[in-house]
Amino acid sequence: MSDRPPPANPAIVLVRPQLGENIGKAARAMLNFGLTDLRLVAPRDGWPNPSAGPAASGADVVLERARIFDTVAQAVADCPHIYATTVRKRGLTTPVATPEQAAAQIRAAPEPSAILFGAERSGLETEEAAIAGTIITVPVNSEFRSLNLAQAVILVAYEWSKHETLAIPTEGGEPEPRAPHAHLEGLIGQLDEALDAAGYFFPPDRTPATRNTMRTILTKPNWSVREIQALRGMIRTLTHPRERGRKPPQG
Amino acid sequence: MSDRPPPANPAIVLVRPQLGENIGKAARAMLNFGLTDLRLVAPRDGWPNPSAGPAASGADVVLERARIFDTVAQAVADCPHIYATTVRKRGLTTPVATPEQAAAQIRAAPEPSAILFGAERSGLETEEAAIAGTIITVPVNSEFRSLNLAQAVILVAYEWSKHETLAIPTEGGEPEPRAPHAHLEGLIGQLDEALDAAGYFFPPDRTPATRNTMRTILTKPNWSVREIQALRGMIRTLTHPRERGRKPPQG
Repeated sequence: MSDRPPPANPAIVLVRPQLGENIGKAARAMLNFGLTDLRLVAPRDGWPNPSAGPAASGADVVLERARIFDTVAQAVADCPHIYATTVRKRGLTTPVATPEQAAAQIRAAPEPSAILFGAERSGLETEEAAIAGTIITVPVNSEFRSLNLAQAVILVAYEWSKHETLAIPTEGGEPEPRAPHAHLEGLIGQLDEALDAAGYFFPPDRTPATRNTMRTILTKPNWSVREIQALRGMIRTLTHPRERGRKPPQG
Repeated sequence: MSDRPPPANPAIVLVRPQLGENIGKAARAMLNFGLTDLRLVAPRDGWPNPSAGPAASGADVVLERARIFDTVAQAVADCPHIYATTVRKRGLTTPVATPEQAAAQIRAAPEPSAILFGAERSGLETEEAAIAGTIITVPVNSEFRSLNLAQAVILVAYEWSKHETLAIPTEGGEPEPRAPHAHLEGLIGQLDEALDAAGYFFPPDRTPATRNTMRTILTKPNWSVREIQALRGMIRTLTHPRERGRKPPQG
């Protein structure tokens, strides 16, 4: 046993959920397996939603603590490890895990994780899934793929809860803390700005795909706070070289 | 591989189900994980039930093939291995398994298995559970036990299917090949050169450590061929911006 505190329970992030009933069912599914951190991104019918409570069947504590955000990036800003439940997206090279594999990763990480679930019909947009370092796909019957939102939540929550009493032993020193998602957004924003100024995004109709590629490439490594600082320093130096007579880059 | 035929898919037996909607949801849960043998014991509202179809969301084949029985004993007459999903019953000494353990047993048995699920509110009677050789109990939050019928079915079906060769659905093609190490060296060399020209490596006595950091950061992601190409294009653009009157970067 290490002295490391147990990993935080993962946050369940419902992205643009439509029906309050499904938010309530998701809360019920969560609490059955000990999860209480529910985050809602732009729920279609606002919040609170009177249909959620009855569907939660007593999981009121989850609904009461639910937090609302405008964007996925804001909802997961404090989480270094982000998972998206979706089929693999065209144009993304994000690694894919089963719920079982993802649960093991979440439990092994000392920092908090968030798991994204898309809207009832449309699922996650490619841009939303691109925020995740790992895609969770439930292996289902290829001839009948019909998991609803609460079912996806319960399967992931169930897998997570399975090994709850297991401690992952550590060897050697503590690993560096992974950067919270907001740090990664800072890096992506800085690089995007620099590339835009340098005329990288051309032709315009390819720009969304190019931005997805860039985001996927940078999301995958799950860098530490220090590593992201180093990368930002490199980009700063490339865009403001010291040898061209400018001041050394600051900050 | 043995010569043994693959185990039959277990039968899902709903005992005295009340709502047609829940029968439909159970069928949907089953088919997602490749189960099609649904058996109903004395459904309260008779059979067929018009509420079942809409709730099945397309799993009609399961409903159409469903068989009706008067008693649990008749429903499982052909199955040597019978499981009951319930909490442990007073007065029974039946062994208890998790869904995971039960799934392993079902898969290991050459003969067919049946899994009993009780009515929505009341669950299985002690006499019904006594027919089973094993009780399946889903480990849930001891302070919030609220699995509904379809959720219990989906968790058991999911565990059973895990070791099936269900395809992970993908959108788009196979994952991209990882880049050979030489591609990574090319990226590191290019970035090193660009950073050196921009005056990044300063002071000189810190340069080896800085280079190690850079290499570690870039080695970690295990990028694909295409991703490394994209990164090299970004570095090229930053060092040779298009808007400063130079040619667009080549190669």
